Amino acid sequence: MQPEKQWRKKSFKQRLALKSSLAKETLSEFLGTCIMIVLGCGCVAQAILSRGRFGGIVTVNVGFAMAVTMAIYVTGGVSGGHINPAVSFAMCLFGRMKWFKFPFYVGAQFLGAFVGSAILFGIYYDGIMSFAGGKLLIVGENATAPIFATYPAPYLSLANAFADQVMSTMFLLLVVFALFDSKNWGVPKGLEPVAIGLLIIVLSSSMGLNCGCAMNPARDLSPRLFTALAGWGFDVFRVGNNFWWIPVVAPMVGAAIGGLVYILLIEIHHPSPNPDFEAEAPEDKLEKHELSVVM
Amino acid sequence: MQPEKQWRKKSFKQRLALKSSLAKETLSEFLGTCIMIVLGCGCVAQAILSRGRFGGIVTVNVGFAMAVTMAIYVTGGVSGGHINPAVSFAMCLFGRMKWFKFPFYVGAQFLGAFVGSAILFGIYYDGIMSFAGGKLLIVGENATAPIFATYPAPYLSLANAFADQVMSTMFLLLVVFALFDSKNWGVPKGLEPVAIGLLIIVLSSSMGLNCGCAMNPARDLSPRLFTALAGWGFDVFRVGNNFWWIPVVAPMVGAAIGGLVYILLIEIHHPSPNPDFEAEAPEDKLEKHELSVVM
Amino acid sequence: MQPEKQWRKKSFKQRLALKSSLAKETLSEFLGTCIMIVLGCGCVAQAILSRGRFGGIVTVNVGFAMAVTMAIYVTGGVSGGHINPAVSFAMCLFGRMKWFKFPFYVGAQFLGAFVGSAILFGIYYDGIMSFAGGKLLIVGENATAPIFATYPAPYLSLANAFADQVMSTMFLLLVVFALFDSKNWGVPKGLEPVAIGLLIIVLSSSMGLNCGCAMNPARDLSPRLFTALAGWGFDVFRVGNNFWWIPVVAPMVGAAIGGLVYILLIEIHHPSPNPDFEAEAPEDKLEKHELSVVM
Amino acid sequence: MQPEKQWRKKSFKQRLALKSSLAKETLSEFLGTCIMIVLGCGCVAQAILSRGRFGGIVTVNVGFAMAVTMAIYVTGGVSGGHINPAVSFAMCLFGRMKWFKFPFYVGAQFLGAFVGSAILFGIYYDGIMSFAGGKLLIVGENATAPIFATYPAPYLSLANAFADQVMSTMFLLLVVFALFDSKNWGVPKGLEPVAIGLLIIVLSSSMGLNCGCAMNPARDLSPRLFTALAGWGFDVFRVGNNFWWIPVVAPMVGAAIGGLVYILLIEIHHPSPNPDFEAEAPEDKLEKHELSVVM
Repeated sequence: MQPEKQWRKKSFKQRLALKSSLAKETLSEFLGTCIMIVLGCGCVAQAILSRGRFGGIVTVNVGFAMAVTMAIYVTGGVSGGHINPAVSFAMCLFGRMKWFKFPFYVGAQFLGAFVGSAILFGIYYDGIMSFAGGKLLIVGENATAPIFATYPAPYLSLANAFADQVMSTMFLLLVVFALFDSKNWGVPKGLEPVAIGLLIIVLSSSMGLNCGCAMNPARDLSPRLFTALAGWGFDVFRVGNNFWWIPVVAPMVGAAIGGLVYILLIEIHHPSPNPDFEAEAPEDKLEKHELSVVM
Repeated sequence: MQPEKQWRKKSFKQRLALKSSLAKETLSEFLGTCIMIVLGCGCVAQAILSRGRFGGIVTVNVGFAMAVTMAIYVTGGVSGGHINPAVSFAMCLFGRMKWFKFPFYVGAQFLGAFVGSAILFGIYYDGIMSFAGGKLLIVGENATAPIFATYPAPYLSLANAFADQVMSTMFLLLVVFALFDSKNWGVPKGLEPVAIGLLIIVLSSSMGLNCGCAMNPARDLSPRLFTALAGWGFDVFRVGNNFWWIPVVAPMVGAAIGGLVYILLIEIHHPSPNPDFEAEAPEDKLEKHELSVVM
Repeated sequence: MQPEKQWRKKSFKQRLALKSSLAKETLSEFLGTCIMIVLGCGCVAQAILSRGRFGGIVTVNVGFAMAVTMAIYVTGGVSGGHINPAVSFAMCLFGRMKWFKFPFYVGAQFLGAFVGSAILFGIYYDGIMSFAGGKLLIVGENATAPIFATYPAPYLSLANAFADQVMSTMFLLLVVFALFDSKNWGVPKGLEPVAIGLLIIVLSSSMGLNCGCAMNPARDLSPRLFTALAGWGFDVFRVGNNFWWIPVVAPMVGAAIGGLVYILLIEIHHPSPNPDFEAEAPEDKLEKHELSVVM
Repeated sequence: MQPEKQWRKKSFKQRLALKSSLAKETLSEFLGTCIMIVLGCGCVAQAILSRGRFGGIVTVNVGFAMAVTMAIYVTGGVSGGHINPAVSFAMCLFGRMKWFKFPFYVGAQFLGAFVGSAILFGIYYDGIMSFAGGKLLIVGENATAPIFATYPAPYLSLANAFADQVMSTMFLLLVVFALFDSKNWGVPKGLEPVAIGLLIIVLSSSMGLNCGCAMNPARDLSPRLFTALAGWGFDVFRVGNNFWWIPVVAPMVGAAIGGLVYILLIEIHHPSPNPDFEAEAPEDKLEKHELSVVM
């Protein structure tokens, strides 16, 4: 290879490579959320479109959890693998991420989930179109809208739905904070995504009945918007007494509470290695910051 | 930030942070047992309330096991993650924990399980209330009490139930002692909670039929008491020929036997690094102590 | 504690502790095989006695596999966790264990499986007795003998059964040899028992239909003998055209082939660190030994 | 042992041991693909031949994934454990393997899959022959051809089938590249095969409905050819509008896209340790190479 050509190649690669750390992280969150939606909602699609023959609660819960695990492996080293605005919110709130990154992360997550929905729609286009004789239904036994977004059980009131999403996201963040707390038991380096996957399995097995355990505004709102535009119509926002905003707002509340509960009940009580210099120690910054949130 | 304000913040945090190791551990056991009940019994709730559509033996067994795993990750670094009076009993009996901590651990576990039951009841309030037309039933196909506590199979005698709980808790402790025995094969650091989860999967898959494989007084008695108070009535203590005391007493017996079997058949025979000074070696204390229990 | 008392305690412990390495290993194999049968066959018991309500192919396959995993964690550090005469046979055949230990290991495994069967029978006594109106049946939909031993599918010839057990044990040993080959990919230290569990899951999911995928003489013959004595009668040896000897003999053949295939296709071709001194190198002994078996 | 005999033994072993690295790797890929087919398609066989009684979507998805995991453990240390021509193609395309090895790897994979199909046919000979009264059917509820190769769902167009196989293999390679990217999160050394197994679980749970999620030309074409020769007839190539070429061609396209997407969106943006000398750095070779593929 001649030096001239080599120089051009290199400059081309340099032009492609992102200098900005924030740009990389935004791209990473976009890709991760997209993967989670295609593979995760894909498990729901397979269960619904086969009417339970090639999928059910086990493949959906395990499959969606492993979709999260794989999305974190793809993005974790670049952007931390949040793939969830509620997680990014808790990270900012408790000083684990700077606030100026928040809109970029969240925007990428919503966009990634929308693109992921479109890809999944493409992959299962023939299946969805032949499922209900070409009709795209939102409720009933031939409904295909639940492939993409979550819908509440018939018995569920809005208040109970809100509590459900707050509590499930609270437990999600509480345990995630524990999994990454190096002063607690600790998951071996490199296996955190698998541990989070196991956590998603138990959460979706225990709190999936009321309203599908979204625990993630991007995972729910973007696919819902996609279905509204792709032919299911804007009733996807109206059914369940305008249920759509619950999995958008409640997870943010739950994430804040979950992080706070972990910090107040566990993290704050870890022995300081050197209590005299605590105020100056860098690890103290987080705890101060988090306290200033509540008081 | 001014020094003055910083000083106040610090002192505030210092006021919150628990100085006493025992207080921290008690709080940790409370939180861990609460998490286990919400997420673990939540899997039973999802299976029962959906009449098997969104849960079954696989999601319950895997989900409950992962609830235990996650509860240990949250609490293990602080209190060892017992979340079970039978485990704490065995730890004290064989010298792994001091006896004066025992009542604090057990009290926290019972309280945590009670609070967890209440949280779960709140999350599934609409579901439970609509399941049997507003009735809270203890037995029969519309029963919701088994969401919280365990009940024996119709064919089971009290003697067989007692033996079942003794044997299952015996195997639980026997294997737990092996998983933490550094002179045996050994689980990689940080993966013990997952190994315990896998153990719970096989125990609930093999010994769950007789009477639900509680293996834990706090996991069973506190939720039972909660149901008695929350509307199911005190028949929850009477059904199954006053079955309620079996999962309270038998696991304590089984835990003692399990630890003893492991020590007598495996641990005691590990080669001593220096047999001459054995009596003075600190690791010998445990074995002496445990022998003094039996003889 | 007075020195006098301390001295007596110590001598008592010393009397209990086994000096002989072989005695320890024999005890360990006994315990491990016993655990595997109670927990593993327990999963079959739960599935059969609940007529599929609280167990099925998933809980049986995953549960039995995790029973093997836990049995290896309990015994691995002492005796290697064979819990299977076919594994011990392959280990001796290819120089991984001395032949004089073989009868002790195998005897302990058969005895452990027999005692495990008795314990399981005790735990599920009420369930087994009430399942078919007090009758202990070997075949048919009310059969309880398959809880303990394996029985062939109706379509299966003896020749196909023999081939099935040879091939499944061959793949078992082939992969086990790979998992422990430090010059191959390698499982992280401490996770080998879990990897073997995952291997058992795929083997029982792919080769369980013909005749139950015993792959282990002790796991099959001892429980069968137990059922013969415990009330099912000696027809347990006669059904399936005297099928009983297939899972006893074929796994020994398969284990030998499996180890040989791995060594011939993979292990023998690993680059020697120093080919000149190969003949004297201790790791060469194994390969020489194994070749002398075949030629 | 006399020196003479020892010398002969050694020379015999030396004659058996392959000197050529390529020969070893070819043998390894042959064995790995063979194992994957026997154990993986074996899970399909058990589910089909038992009409769902001893197998279903969970045992097939988990079992096939673990078959891949075990095949990688057997072959990974020698040949990297591709066991898939699409993976070998992507490895060559992006500079992770030299092109001259490609035909050897692919040939071994196709041959291994063919031999594996024959072994599986032998193991389940009685079962297959008795399943449909001795008839070997390709479609319908008594079909046994789907044990070996994949067939499209009735609703699926060829265009959608092609897109399905491109997309599923794209996600496979995208995540595999992430799992092995040491600058990303990273799977602990020795657990990569398990992580790939988890990835296969989610892919087959989310993208298995359209046409069985082959994602591997060797896994599909060789077993299909085997069934054509073994008695099902060459209609196995004609059904589904000559579907057979889709899982052969589309995975190659998808693998190339998947690797490219990972590199363009994630890998290329990793910070260079020393940007000035980047052009000469050995790890830069890969990126230059891969760019020259597209431009």
